[in-house]
Amino acid sequence: MFFIRIVIELGDIYILRLGHRVNRDKRITTHVCLVARAFGARVCILTGDYDPKIIHTLEDVTKRWGGPFECIYVGDWRRYIKEWKSEGRRIIVHLTMYGVNIVDKIDELRDKFSSGYDILVIVGSEKVPRDVYDMADYNIAIGNQPHSEVAALAVFLDWLQQGKELEREFIGAKQKIVPMEKGKKVVEIA
Amino acid sequence: MFFIRIVIELGDIYILRLGHRVNRDKRITTHVCLVARAFGARVCILTGDYDPKIIHTLEDVTKRWGGPFECIYVGDWRRYIKEWKSEGRRIIVHLTMYGVNIVDKIDELRDKFSSGYDILVIVGSEKVPRDVYDMADYNIAIGNQPHSEVAALAVFLDWLQQGKELEREFIGAKQKIVPMEKGKKVVEIA
Repeated sequence: MFFIRIVIELGDIYILRLGHRVNRDKRITTHVCLVARAFGARVCILTGDYDPKIIHTLEDVTKRWGGPFECIYVGDWRRYIKEWKSEGRRIIVHLTMYGVNIVDKIDELRDKFSSGYDILVIVGSEKVPRDVYDMADYNIAIGNQPHSEVAALAVFLDWLQQGKELEREFIGAKQKIVPMEKGKKVVEIA
Repeated sequence: MFFIRIVIELGDIYILRLGHRVNRDKRITTHVCLVARAFGARVCILTGDYDPKIIHTLEDVTKRWGGPFECIYVGDWRRYIKEWKSEGRRIIVHLTMYGVNIVDKIDELRDKFSSGYDILVIVGSEKVPRDVYDMADYNIAIGNQPHSEVAALAVFLDWLQQGKELEREFIGAKQKIVPMEKGKKVVEIA
């Protein structure tokens, strides 16, 4: 007897957080990293001021709630992006309110992702250098209104994965929430 | 000759941001308000420390980019919630990682919203008082993982409105983005 197993190999998701100022951006950058992990990215690359506290926070979260996920810091992000891109079957998406509305590009992006392309999502903080717009294969707006890079990242990853990321099992978790109509329930995983 | 005009009357969306500490939460609360406006809420209610700068920032954004949207501050949020709820055909959704995954409740919520129910979405900051879970008609998780109230709010509003909020026209805007593949273009509206 034969079994046919269909494996759809999705690409990996990388997030690059462009720019960071230790005091001003601490919480926003942390939220970017938490969203990256919770919404299915494998790696979050931090740039700007070196801020090891954020990396430790995310290591702690990943230890408790599972992964795979890691946060790394790179000093020369232009070089990182060029080297990342050189591997082929990889696309760079820069999220910006000035870009093409995701509504008009999502089919193309989902096609690439579901045929195995890795995606590097760049999210800026304040002013994004002009060359980032050129380095990106796609400049995508999550609506052409000012809002939040945290929100833009979450909605982008949700559209890309069509909500499936919200039901994903995390590997190696020590604890897990039991969803409740009222109240809180967390169980330890043996 | 007769014309039949079908009007689907959606409810209004209100966001209540629970808790705010002026220094620590300034940027996260601002992002919550910006997301509220950009993702189709009419009103964002601020609580916790009184911080008029955030209200002014949002007034400025709404003047330039359009509305309708307003930010208000309330001191006694428990009373506000009770009075809000007393008007009927209104439901309260509290976003929390401990709640029922949105995947399992979205149909019910969309049905209510599209039949004209107003929705008050509560997003907490740090520790949410126990009675909020009881006041809410729904405690909803945007995935049962730790991430960000900014992300949770955006994804919730996006699921509720099925992405239509990203194509909405804002009223009274003075400027508008012309979406671009590369670069930035903003035009003034006469």
